[in-house]
Amino acid sequence: MKFIDKLRASAVKNDSLVCVGLDSDVAKLPAGVDQLSFNKAIVDATHDLVCGYKPNTAFYEARGAEGIQVLKDTCDYIRAKAPDVLIILDAKRADIGNTNAGYVQFAYDYLGADAITLHPYLGREALEPFLAREDKGAIVLCRTSNPGAGEFQDQYVDGHKLYEYVAKMVAGDWNGSGNCMLVVGATYPAEAAAVRQIVGDDVWFLVPGVGAQGGDVQKTMEAAQNSRGDGLIISSSRDIIFASSGTDFAAAARNSTELLRSEINTYRKGK
Amino acid sequence: MKFIDKLRASAVKNDSLVCVGLDSDVAKLPAGVDQLSFNKAIVDATHDLVCGYKPNTAFYEARGAEGIQVLKDTCDYIRAKAPDVLIILDAKRADIGNTNAGYVQFAYDYLGADAITLHPYLGREALEPFLAREDKGAIVLCRTSNPGAGEFQDQYVDGHKLYEYVAKMVAGDWNGSGNCMLVVGATYPAEAAAVRQIVGDDVWFLVPGVGAQGGDVQKTMEAAQNSRGDGLIISSSRDIIFASSGTDFAAAARNSTELLRSEINTYRKGK
Repeated sequence: MKFIDKLRASAVKNDSLVCVGLDSDVAKLPAGVDQLSFNKAIVDATHDLVCGYKPNTAFYEARGAEGIQVLKDTCDYIRAKAPDVLIILDAKRADIGNTNAGYVQFAYDYLGADAITLHPYLGREALEPFLAREDKGAIVLCRTSNPGAGEFQDQYVDGHKLYEYVAKMVAGDWNGSGNCMLVVGATYPAEAAAVRQIVGDDVWFLVPGVGAQGGDVQKTMEAAQNSRGDGLIISSSRDIIFASSGTDFAAAARNSTELLRSEINTYRKGK
Repeated sequence: MKFIDKLRASAVKNDSLVCVGLDSDVAKLPAGVDQLSFNKAIVDATHDLVCGYKPNTAFYEARGAEGIQVLKDTCDYIRAKAPDVLIILDAKRADIGNTNAGYVQFAYDYLGADAITLHPYLGREALEPFLAREDKGAIVLCRTSNPGAGEFQDQYVDGHKLYEYVAKMVAGDWNGSGNCMLVVGATYPAEAAAVRQIVGDDVWFLVPGVGAQGGDVQKTMEAAQNSRGDGLIISSSRDIIFASSGTDFAAAARNSTELLRSEINTYRKGK
């Protein structure tokens, strides 16, 4: 199955553009709950409300081999529980060509993820092992959500800002397999609108940065959706998974996910 | 101990600017030799000839949790065998600030690495958890060795090419802890010379790309060393660790390492 078809179907399935970020920092877990049990409880509580889960590798690598095993068990659990929901590995990888084969193996063969986030700096040629996989998503950092994102991304290149230039290249030359997406932070709605303008309706965005980082859902939707009322996945991590630090964390996560889904859908064109 | 002092001492210890890349792809290992035994044999055979080892995480992550355990055991082995030799984690990471804390934990607490390679795209603010560690090296991708490196890196920004702009920022604003290095590929000697011009004598380069990728040692040394005859570490992977595919692989690796050290030293100023 082509990635773009799985992506579209995942958004239709639960009428949702919400992706839950599994940034399951062990220092923040409720007392007595281990990382894997926590993830399973979050998935149990939310899988009928989302289009995807986005585990960030940093929170698993921090614990070494044991954490990687938890990451794999989490991915296996999601696939069994909700096979139509995307698993987006937020790994922000990118190496030279032959080395990327190792990351492809990690993300797709070992974890069974549907997509991975990637740095653009090495260029299309280096990322070919990801771009060639039409069954898997290649989600390229374009405008990141952090306060200092502009240091390089706002520099002018060829009359456009670097993040716009990245958007143009990824939506064009890089997208031969139709599997490219762009990371565009909710903290920068004007930039998101500029990227939508450049890439048209067919390239989807992965949008982190709502909630704790300060991004606003209404502004994001107005800026980033396409003319069909989709074209983006909004990812929320801390505001969902750590909505409560008590024993009711899963119920609180469900509640936050429902609110976010509903808020997003309020602003979708044609809804 | 400051990273820059450990770096300088590592080059003096064995009179060597050679770093051995532990790109220990399991598909290429000699028959009957597992990944960890292979790495130990390479370290045993070469540790008195090098200034560093550079395991690339992709070749370990490819095997999941088991591979991460091998990576940790390899790092532990290097530290026990050759405590003065650097462990450079070629991970090419970079996320937003609080997430990078997970990678810091992985690289420095779990693996005990001395340095890590980083993508520049998110800017200084995001990389602060790495830059703040004066005891650990932050090695930022500047001019990568791959054929398509120029797609973004050669774009003009503020009158200079992007890789030159990255070099200027990293050697300046980013280097408050004196722990920054730059990745500059041996496949681009003219670009390496331009970067040396920009950053002066005190910023060290990590230089991949000699041998299999086509980089030339003489051209690299003429372009990239500083006025003191150092300021760079040349990393070779396949030409050393896979110099022989037979049972004599370790002896062949030693031989290749000796030749590379000697060739590099031939071109060092003041030698």
